[in-house]
Amino acid sequence: MIKIANRIGVVGGGSWATAIVKVLQHHQKKVNWFIRRQDVIDAISNSGHNPEYLSQVELNPAMISASNNLDEVISNSDIVIFCIPAAFLHRQIETLDKKLLQDKIIISAIKGVIPEFNAIVSRYFNTVFDVPAENYGVIAGPTHAEEVVMDKLSYLTAASVNDDIGAVLIELLGTRNIKISVSSDVIGIEYASVLKNIYAVAAGISVGLGYGDNFLSVLTTNAIVEMRRFLDAINHCKRDVNNTSYCGDIIVTSYSQFSRNRMFGNLIGKGYSVNYSRIEMKQVAEGYYASKCMTEINEQYKVDMPIMNAVYNICYNNVSPSQEMRRLAEKLK
Amino acid sequence: MIKIANRIGVVGGGSWATAIVKVLQHHQKKVNWFIRRQDVIDAISNSGHNPEYLSQVELNPAMISASNNLDEVISNSDIVIFCIPAAFLHRQIETLDKKLLQDKIIISAIKGVIPEFNAIVSRYFNTVFDVPAENYGVIAGPTHAEEVVMDKLSYLTAASVNDDIGAVLIELLGTRNIKISVSSDVIGIEYASVLKNIYAVAAGISVGLGYGDNFLSVLTTNAIVEMRRFLDAINHCKRDVNNTSYCGDIIVTSYSQFSRNRMFGNLIGKGYSVNYSRIEMKQVAEGYYASKCMTEINEQYKVDMPIMNAVYNICYNNVSPSQEMRRLAEKLK
Repeated sequence: MIKIANRIGVVGGGSWATAIVKVLQHHQKKVNWFIRRQDVIDAISNSGHNPEYLSQVELNPAMISASNNLDEVISNSDIVIFCIPAAFLHRQIETLDKKLLQDKIIISAIKGVIPEFNAIVSRYFNTVFDVPAENYGVIAGPTHAEEVVMDKLSYLTAASVNDDIGAVLIELLGTRNIKISVSSDVIGIEYASVLKNIYAVAAGISVGLGYGDNFLSVLTTNAIVEMRRFLDAINHCKRDVNNTSYCGDIIVTSYSQFSRNRMFGNLIGKGYSVNYSRIEMKQVAEGYYASKCMTEINEQYKVDMPIMNAVYNICYNNVSPSQEMRRLAEKLK
Repeated sequence: MIKIANRIGVVGGGSWATAIVKVLQHHQKKVNWFIRRQDVIDAISNSGHNPEYLSQVELNPAMISASNNLDEVISNSDIVIFCIPAAFLHRQIETLDKKLLQDKIIISAIKGVIPEFNAIVSRYFNTVFDVPAENYGVIAGPTHAEEVVMDKLSYLTAASVNDDIGAVLIELLGTRNIKISVSSDVIGIEYASVLKNIYAVAAGISVGLGYGDNFLSVLTTNAIVEMRRFLDAINHCKRDVNNTSYCGDIIVTSYSQFSRNRMFGNLIGKGYSVNYSRIEMKQVAEGYYASKCMTEINEQYKVDMPIMNAVYNICYNNVSPSQEMRRLAEKLK
């Protein structure tokens, strides 16, 4: 059993990292926090607020050791929670000595594919940093950082092949308002987290184009089935895609006004170019990158994925969104 | 094979009936239309608009034979499409001579349980009017009448044990913007249509109480699983609840601003009494009645249905919505 008194590191300075630090503070945990920008570190140390993300959240600077020295943060931690957009993770940590991660518990709070490797996060840490499966866990689920810090009741899934890691995550992040279920389906949950961002882009495009509620629900149910088809093809195991961490994640991302991916799709549907829509979004729309990576990953599996193909064609092949969605609509049921 | 040149009757004067008549007119079909109120009949005959529902829709009065004589409408029709709220159906048609329905194709566009019999519509027509299964079909799916008449792309499911009826419904109601899938799971689809109204009430209550996006998605995914559990218990057959007519129906009803059931629940969640909320809603919130009927039906099956129980307790047992939802939240995952 892992001791949860262990030293905890958080890597990343965005909304989700900020929310996680807030929850850890709720449990009176000290946090080694890697943040890239010195001005953000200074602001947090001085004011207890992250000026860039969730700036309303009050943090206790006395319980935070913030640093832009990644080696130091990791060396001083036994459990390291990574919260960096997948698109930037490798650039951020590629020079890290893999020995630093030896015998650490690596937790990914990342949703996405590492584009340089076309790999989900578990595979990336495993192949590039030799992190064994039993040292690795994922925290996933249809959660908004915004809601977590507003103390809205939220449900997360902690996935690991190591039951101890699930138990640790429940103790570290579970609260009266954060319910955590455990799962051993790391690969399925990671791919689901990637795919749902693509489906949220599709949802946004359909809404932007003026499709209605009925179409959106049909798109969403077809997305659930498409995801199940892919997961069964890459890793057939007993999983119920109607559990929250698969299906719930698709629903909340496709329907929520907080979803960056849906907003991104919405701009495209409304007629803005893909490039303009990318620039317009302050935060990264993971689904944009994911549609490319997953299309490439799927080349070896050849699973029928019409929704993903439509997003990819619109984002990367300069295909007209209205024509592509109409073509897609003919394949849905 | 049934000839679709057959005479068509529509029973009911609400939104969905109006939308169906509009679609039938798109296919150049004459319609015998039963409407209870003479003033509505007169308005439609004179102006081509239903003054009460979807009043913006233009109908061609020359292709409509509207009447408040139900016997006459049914006698003159070979296919009769029933579009009356389930709560009122029996009161409306109980005096009907069952011989009138002999050899007719009976189509239900009704979502709900007939409260006097605690029966889904197929069972009601079968036991009370001797309509055999092979003469009966259902038109279902996550469709809003409002969207259909706005020509928004919509997907419906035509369910019947008789393949000919599915084919007829595709010809009568399918258009470029209305895609129709067929299914033989009449019972499953009818129960799904009933249950989703209950789940939409639950969704509305949670939103009214201030629960967030994450909770709503968790509630929705748990509702899908609860529905699957019930359907498997009452009629185990090969069905995929992730198809549009099951899961899509739950999603659209729970997330749509058009949903009366969600609005009804929302009022309750905001602190209005159940009675006030019922009066406030101009149209019937089917989920209110359904929670009672389904609770009674489930007494013989004893399926674990915590979401339905919560709605029932709030609607009929005067239980505090906030306490009941908190109790429910502990059971979700």
